[in-house]
Amino acid sequence: MIYLDNAATTPITDNVLEAMLPWLKEGFGNPSSVYSVGRKSAIALNKARALCAEVLGCQPKNIFFTSGGTESDNHAIFAAAEKARAVGKMHIITSSVEHHAVLEPLRVLEKKGFRVTRLPVYDNGIVRVSDLEAAVTPDTAFVTVMAANNEIGTIQPIDGIGAVCRERGILFHTDAVQAFGNMPLDTNSVDMLSLSGHKLHAPKGVGLLYVREPASLPPFILGGSQQSGKRAGTENVAGIVGLAEAMRAAAEGAEEKRVKLLAMRERITREISKIKGARLNGDPERRLASNVNFSFEGVEGEALILQLDLAGIAVSSGSACTSGSLDPSHVLLALGLSHDEARSSVRITMSDLTTDEDIDGLLAVLPSAVDKLRYLRGISL
Amino acid sequence: MIYLDNAATTPITDNVLEAMLPWLKEGFGNPSSVYSVGRKSAIALNKARALCAEVLGCQPKNIFFTSGGTESDNHAIFAAAEKARAVGKMHIITSSVEHHAVLEPLRVLEKKGFRVTRLPVYDNGIVRVSDLEAAVTPDTAFVTVMAANNEIGTIQPIDGIGAVCRERGILFHTDAVQAFGNMPLDTNSVDMLSLSGHKLHAPKGVGLLYVREPASLPPFILGGSQQSGKRAGTENVAGIVGLAEAMRAAAEGAEEKRVKLLAMRERITREISKIKGARLNGDPERRLASNVNFSFEGVEGEALILQLDLAGIAVSSGSACTSGSLDPSHVLLALGLSHDEARSSVRITMSDLTTDEDIDGLLAVLPSAVDKLRYLRGISL
Repeated sequence: MIYLDNAATTPITDNVLEAMLPWLKEGFGNPSSVYSVGRKSAIALNKARALCAEVLGCQPKNIFFTSGGTESDNHAIFAAAEKARAVGKMHIITSSVEHHAVLEPLRVLEKKGFRVTRLPVYDNGIVRVSDLEAAVTPDTAFVTVMAANNEIGTIQPIDGIGAVCRERGILFHTDAVQAFGNMPLDTNSVDMLSLSGHKLHAPKGVGLLYVREPASLPPFILGGSQQSGKRAGTENVAGIVGLAEAMRAAAEGAEEKRVKLLAMRERITREISKIKGARLNGDPERRLASNVNFSFEGVEGEALILQLDLAGIAVSSGSACTSGSLDPSHVLLALGLSHDEARSSVRITMSDLTTDEDIDGLLAVLPSAVDKLRYLRGISL
Repeated sequence: MIYLDNAATTPITDNVLEAMLPWLKEGFGNPSSVYSVGRKSAIALNKARALCAEVLGCQPKNIFFTSGGTESDNHAIFAAAEKARAVGKMHIITSSVEHHAVLEPLRVLEKKGFRVTRLPVYDNGIVRVSDLEAAVTPDTAFVTVMAANNEIGTIQPIDGIGAVCRERGILFHTDAVQAFGNMPLDTNSVDMLSLSGHKLHAPKGVGLLYVREPASLPPFILGGSQQSGKRAGTENVAGIVGLAEAMRAAAEGAEEKRVKLLAMRERITREISKIKGARLNGDPERRLASNVNFSFEGVEGEALILQLDLAGIAVSSGSACTSGSLDPSHVLLALGLSHDEARSSVRITMSDLTTDEDIDGLLAVLPSAVDKLRYLRGISL
């Protein structure tokens, strides 16, 4: 199989699985237990937390392990909203291309009295810091803008947004689920940051929320005293150890890996652009090195994906989390695409495991698959 | 190691790990993806859900996978509270011996205007259905009472509580984290039921919430359309497959296993009772076959645990989730124990992996460890 849907999920690498296995076997103790087998789990957990903190350039106390990116986003937003409501601030700023894990909590908050401003992303898929500055009011409680988009890979000006927020004392959360490992990330620019394990070769069911000032926020899950009482529940030791190892590996030689991916991205973009009626979605430069997203005039994206699947190639038509939905992508609509254009798009996303041979395989099949689908619909360009 | 703290966590069994491994290796697809490797994950997820439903005697649509028992309890309670508030019902009934994953959410709800009645458990650790009946008011929104206690193993009259609730149209949630696998459970008695994977030989980081009428409740985590939109986030496929296999295995020959555990429990109880100043906490009969909990006059429970740890025996002084806390157990205080008595207690909990040799090992060491600790403190009984 040629797997080119790494924005949906990634395979667990051998180093990550090896790091996890002892904690699925003999190292089963509850990290809150005081006897040996429990203490060993606690030590593994502490090491993992320290490693994650080192990679993110923060302290272990700023790291909260969760069940994934969606949980991290939900907690960040609902905790920030609770804090905001306590001081009577009821305005939130976000972008129009966030993941549903951000959009849906904000929709609930709107029903509960918050006002939400959704910054436009223009035709390149990127918010403007000047728009953020214009949107800020004395009532603005927090800002949540993703670091990089999950569908089109466009990179948001996180440092600029962070500077505006810091200057005005506004809390800033970023969903960095797609960004981490694919671009440099600086936790100094943000107050909260969400990560997901399974997007970076760690298992599904584990994620992380970075919080600059945990004491200022209400707890996320209530119960036992785990994770400073902020996120109760017995920790997923194996998953957390796997996440830490995956983050360590992602940080190692990150720039070399990015340059290699950039070359692949440019090659795919160049070759696919030769197909008639093919159009790149999102900024051609200010996007993740791992992401390509094209619309193909006269083609159903879903049909193209199934054609490629028959050839053993896995790509997607957008976010996996909304697969099965017939609605066109809100991200592509925000760029100004028509419903038909949005439905004709295909997302190709790589990881450091992607090889030139994978790209050869994709490029050998994609043009004829597009031709075939157009032929079947009687379309010639 | 002789592991006798199975109420804190359990080792993952070989059958469970074997069931999980394919989904940590080649079967890494996102179950929401439409291509082959994604569809395989979706099929595994559906099979796991069907298996869990079969074991619990419900439909797959009633099963929601979570990150563990604490998340399940939090969601059940906050969702029930939101539903209740919408119809202006502000009264909740619980017991005085719930897990912190139930107690803490209820404390937050009290701050938000709910009234909470905590039913007493008398000296045997069991609530009375007549007390529940007396506590119900027209304003009562829901009842949450655990199926069996995590510290003393006492079994609550879930069927009786369920009958009262059903008759009066009151939602009934039970935390069955300790009960499942150790006693018969009937989902017909309850509207919601929480389970935790790592208490039954599945991994940490996965749990389940049974919901009789999911449509009547707000979503638990917001984002993508996973799990009917009720609990968003990419599913922990490996963990869920492991949970389903663990539930299947727990149900297989459950009664034989329970009878075997009962014999072990009776042997431990009989032998420990011979130690001077030893006193069984909680009802001697209406408790899980896997649970023994004793107070030892003149002994610090924590010190006894460390003594046993030196001998390679793992037991605990109560809930692992509150380890490190100096407060005596709220469960033991609810039985009427003094602070000193509560602090002198030790919990011994078995699983179907526990052997007679494990019990031999415990009984060979425990009496002299108690003697030694009393001697060091100059106490003779």
